[in-house]
Amino acid sequence: MRERDLLRHIYQRSAALGERVTLGPGDDMGGVRFGDRELLVTVDQVADGVHFHLAATPLDLLARKCIVRNLSDVAAMAAVPVAAVAAAALPQGFGQLRADELFEHLQRIALGYDCPLIGGDVTVWDQRLLITITVFADPGGIAPVRRSTARPGDRVYVTGELGGAWDEQGGGPHLTAEPRLALARALARSTAVGLHAMIDLSDGLATDLRHICEASGVAAEIEVDCLPCRDTIRHDGRPPWRHALTDGEDYELCFTADGEVPETIAGVPIRAVGRILPAARRQSPIVLLLPDGGRRALTETGWQHDHDPDRDPERG
Amino acid sequence: MRERDLLRHIYQRSAALGERVTLGPGDDMGGVRFGDRELLVTVDQVADGVHFHLAATPLDLLARKCIVRNLSDVAAMAAVPVAAVAAAALPQGFGQLRADELFEHLQRIALGYDCPLIGGDVTVWDQRLLITITVFADPGGIAPVRRSTARPGDRVYVTGELGGAWDEQGGGPHLTAEPRLALARALARSTAVGLHAMIDLSDGLATDLRHICEASGVAAEIEVDCLPCRDTIRHDGRPPWRHALTDGEDYELCFTADGEVPETIAGVPIRAVGRILPAARRQSPIVLLLPDGGRRALTETGWQHDHDPDRDPERG
Repeated sequence: MRERDLLRHIYQRSAALGERVTLGPGDDMGGVRFGDRELLVTVDQVADGVHFHLAATPLDLLARKCIVRNLSDVAAMAAVPVAAVAAAALPQGFGQLRADELFEHLQRIALGYDCPLIGGDVTVWDQRLLITITVFADPGGIAPVRRSTARPGDRVYVTGELGGAWDEQGGGPHLTAEPRLALARALARSTAVGLHAMIDLSDGLATDLRHICEASGVAAEIEVDCLPCRDTIRHDGRPPWRHALTDGEDYELCFTADGEVPETIAGVPIRAVGRILPAARRQSPIVLLLPDGGRRALTETGWQHDHDPDRDPERG
Repeated sequence: MRERDLLRHIYQRSAALGERVTLGPGDDMGGVRFGDRELLVTVDQVADGVHFHLAATPLDLLARKCIVRNLSDVAAMAAVPVAAVAAAALPQGFGQLRADELFEHLQRIALGYDCPLIGGDVTVWDQRLLITITVFADPGGIAPVRRSTARPGDRVYVTGELGGAWDEQGGGPHLTAEPRLALARALARSTAVGLHAMIDLSDGLATDLRHICEASGVAAEIEVDCLPCRDTIRHDGRPPWRHALTDGEDYELCFTADGEVPETIAGVPIRAVGRILPAARRQSPIVLLLPDGGRRALTETGWQHDHDPDRDPERG
């Protein structure tokens, strides 16, 4: 089973949710009218053996990843975090001290983003640790930036650096990512930028840009020489740009815009990596411009979470 | 590790969450100011082997339990559900068809309570099924009813019937409970009732009334002859009232009030089962009035979710 196939199916079934719903499942956040505002909500699970390796991950970094993974979705809509709730299924023997420590870290880190934890749930079971965070956010006077509004002629941009987010021991940049909240607000506020669509990079640029293309009914080409490749990418015989496309868990932003985009915002580099094209028929919506000048339709790759990351052939 | 000790610890650490927070962790729902309203939030996990047995539970009943477990918390605050998000960690081999079916049931059941699912997350792993639901609610013009506002002299009431919610095969009333949303609104709206404190019965009356006592700084006595015992309670040598006190997963309401309480609301029976007393020193806050006229302080029992329900000695 592929996570995106499953989610796609869920979205198709979610029509007719009532007039209160402003954004059904299928974007970075769902939305619902609440009083005089729109309430935006995202939920994400962080599972031992899939998104981290408990034995190799300090609890403060684990807590940080749990919060950041959700706040990255908030950034992708250019929204403002309001509060969060945390649920944890703890393995037997995890121990109360460590559980306390985990929740204290979650609260401390969430508060650091002005997003207090206001509730929680704890279950103890004989399975591995799973942490589920739900974050709710306020559009803060900016229309939520969606995946479905990319236009042919837009340039495609990414923030920060991509690829190699996991090191061989399970550590690496995926544990210390910074949600691009302020950057996203600055992009969305600027009329010069001409921001159209945005998504956060959790599954890898190849997969996440495909989400934009499918939701927007467009195609995209990526100039692989332009990809900002992290220098932590392992030397495994594959070119670094392949890692930048498919490794995943970068928690950077990918967006499309047709105006003037700054080279950096708040110290974070922004790189043009391609452009949006009219929808392609009968082929992948993503085309790569290779270093040798060739063009190649990108097959469906990207990191599927139902693989053990240590055994995922795409991770090298 | 005991769930309530852990949660109690988390609550103690949750001071200073900022002026936006109206209800920190520790009640049935957390609360935060959002625009012109108060946003209430609850999160609950439903885990295979703890809250249900996958092999013995049809997916529609499982989905129903997931939604009802959360809506019961909404009822406990006399609030109105607005929307929900669902996260599932699926065991490998669960299959896309069953996953689709599960999410369709979740959406259908949630919509039946006017609480659309507006987002979700799916992870596939090599562990058991875990479903986490977060529900958002609106106070709907009524101050959220808390656990901490019981007063000496109040009578203690429960709705419906208690005990025996699990049968030997893992089925039973815990899968078909009805969240007491309308009943709770009617209680809270009525000035004649004099509603003071409320909680939903998930861990068993003994444990949940203890939560009210601890949060309110009071004690309580329960007349065990008054407990409305379900006729599905197993004959295991223990009196039915012991099951009604400790079996758990009733998803009924327990509340305290000092006015005129109807015997039924919307066809649901309401039974007076005891009263609130001033705080007791150096003993359990819960005292039982036994059928033989004796009084006994209730030791800390109730269903702890870190036990396998099949092996929990309290479940008989």
